[in-house]
Amino acid sequence: MARYKAVVEYDGTDYAGFQRQIPEAGPTVQGELESALAAINGGVAVTAHGAGRTDTGVHAAGQVIAFDLQWAHGTDALTRALNANLPRTIAVKSAAECAAGFHPRFSAKGRRYRYAILNAPARSPLRERFAWRVWPLLDARAMAEASQYLMGRKDFGAFGSSPEPGGHTVREVREARWDADDDNAMLNFHIEADAFLRRMVRSIVGTLKWVGAGEIAPDAFGDIVASADRSRAAAPAPPNGLCLVEVLY
Amino acid sequence: MARYKAVVEYDGTDYAGFQRQIPEAGPTVQGELESALAAINGGVAVTAHGAGRTDTGVHAAGQVIAFDLQWAHGTDALTRALNANLPRTIAVKSAAECAAGFHPRFSAKGRRYRYAILNAPARSPLRERFAWRVWPLLDARAMAEASQYLMGRKDFGAFGSSPEPGGHTVREVREARWDADDDNAMLNFHIEADAFLRRMVRSIVGTLKWVGAGEIAPDAFGDIVASADRSRAAAPAPPNGLCLVEVLY
Repeated sequence: MARYKAVVEYDGTDYAGFQRQIPEAGPTVQGELESALAAINGGVAVTAHGAGRTDTGVHAAGQVIAFDLQWAHGTDALTRALNANLPRTIAVKSAAECAAGFHPRFSAKGRRYRYAILNAPARSPLRERFAWRVWPLLDARAMAEASQYLMGRKDFGAFGSSPEPGGHTVREVREARWDADDDNAMLNFHIEADAFLRRMVRSIVGTLKWVGAGEIAPDAFGDIVASADRSRAAAPAPPNGLCLVEVLY
Repeated sequence: MARYKAVVEYDGTDYAGFQRQIPEAGPTVQGELESALAAINGGVAVTAHGAGRTDTGVHAAGQVIAFDLQWAHGTDALTRALNANLPRTIAVKSAAECAAGFHPRFSAKGRRYRYAILNAPARSPLRERFAWRVWPLLDARAMAEASQYLMGRKDFGAFGSSPEPGGHTVREVREARWDADDDNAMLNFHIEADAFLRRMVRSIVGTLKWVGAGEIAPDAFGDIVASADRSRAAAPAPPNGLCLVEVLY
């Protein structure tokens, strides 16, 4: 029996989030991964621990999981065997043996997320699966300026609550920047922190969209950050624009 | 009653192609568009003529349709009303009144398609919805060189049959080029012609993949083009990588 670490990519559109739930909530990414693990383990259940509990409809390019398994055929064969038992919306990118004490969530030193806004007047079925469509035109420069108020170690209570009951809301944001592609119609927000509060990225993006739409100025966004008051920030932006890009160890 | 021209984008993954079929074949893009048209026309059926009969699983960013409708509220309201009656995988991008003699297929002067290859070792649920994943590494330069044999007016019988029974297989290819993005993992083939044979782009890409994989040389690809012999080309590449980008008038 050894512990394995695997990187997982998924299209979250049709899943009730990462974390296993009561069956009525719908299929989950963890549930599908554990089914694939059981299938290659002679039907015996295997628990897959994840680094981040992504919400319903949120995607991942680099979720990390760990599990204990008796496996004698090497990690390439392990990756292939898992992929052969997963739906096409979930894939194991790579797998490696890791230390028995490794836990994808508690061992993580940081996480990187991307949030995509499609700033376009017309619906786009080819792009809205992975982006939040917003119109009219957003002021991308004002959003970039406001994002700088996120940098550093501070109380982000304005944007969410701790995943632990009673946990504190101090986090360290190490990167918060925007870039654009596709003739500036796609605005991508890149954010890295040691850890995130529940719905933190989506609440930040919802509030930055106020800045982009000219409803508040960049320094008013800074005031909202500083207030740590959940009632002052916007509702979370929709889940389809969000992607867990990487977990750092 | 006036004739309208509309540009339509769709994610073809879950459709049995553009063209209306027997119900057992599954939902079609034309069927969904005609349902939306009937819904805004008091339940009275409206025929939507399309520019290109995209196959099962093929996408479109710029399909063009035409239909006759009594509509008194302007084209912006028409676009909104249709979108309100369409599934999220199909969208009307714009609509305009056009001449009564306009037919999206017979009036078209050209079509542009894009075919996306994801040249990567690992499965990618976030990208394979819109790309054909191929591994090992392809020789992109050899594929670009081979593509030049497609240019010009010639018999493309090696890559498909006419959509008309007994129709000829001469077409004029005006553009055939590759570009790369996403660290060269995404290889995009751009092709424009006056018109296309059935499955022509996918058969060309399947055969160019032979070149990229080193199975045949670029000049051997030229020989296959010149032969106009369907038995010498590859099977069509999968539909999910193909997108009808634009119809030219």
